[in-house]
Amino acid sequence: MPSQETMKAAMQAYIDAFNSGDPAAVVALYAADATVEDPVGSPLKRGHAEIGAFYTHSIATGAKLSLDAPIRGSHGNCAAMAFSARIGPVTVRVIDIMTFDEAGKFTSMKAYFGPGDILQG
Amino acid sequence: MPSQETMKAAMQAYIDAFNSGDPAAVVALYAADATVEDPVGSPLKRGHAEIGAFYTHSIATGAKLSLDAPIRGSHGNCAAMAFSARIGPVTVRVIDIMTFDEAGKFTSMKAYFGPGDILQG
Repeated sequence: MPSQETMKAAMQAYIDAFNSGDPAAVVALYAADATVEDPVGSPLKRGHAEIGAFYTHSIATGAKLSLDAPIRGSHGNCAAMAFSARIGPVTVRVIDIMTFDEAGKFTSMKAYFGPGDILQG
Repeated sequence: MPSQETMKAAMQAYIDAFNSGDPAAVVALYAADATVEDPVGSPLKRGHAEIGAFYTHSIATGAKLSLDAPIRGSHGNCAAMAFSARIGPVTVRVIDIMTFDEAGKFTSMKAYFGPGDILQG
């Protein structure tokens, strides 16, 4: 499995690519057959085309992500981070869990937030 | 599935029961056949007996838990929280993911932290 440092660097690269407004750079962090469940409880997006469409839309909202606490690794092939997404006056409090392949690409992403984690103003 | 409020209250009750030094109160938050993977990448503990032994040991270390950011819900039957466990001079940065049954009990817990998330002094 990838090193803790590799996984955490990929998590940080995800934040940075999102905030720089570059959907292709976000998608490049994912394995070809990866899945995205964002939010958890919604239908899966699978593969670069669906995932790319999702991030093109998400980034176009103007959302910016900032970590709420340091990224966590694991004793397996996954990592976790708590962050806030700010979209104009709206803040969404999220925790993302990513799993990784041997190459250090995301094989899955799950974004945990509920209706009550979307704050106005 | 349980309400967002029910799930978040159970997450907070977990923190409070742990910090009050009451393993039985922690175990009572779990369904009878629940699983615990703490840390993620280690063997599962399953059922109240194994889970109880784990928390009896964990609480006996003197560890105290404090949230690093507000608890997150989801659009499904799960919730997430980032917290730090302080054990004497050691801090462990953790993200927990819990899934829930209809009664609002935990059916699974996964604790994400790696060797690099254990900080000395």
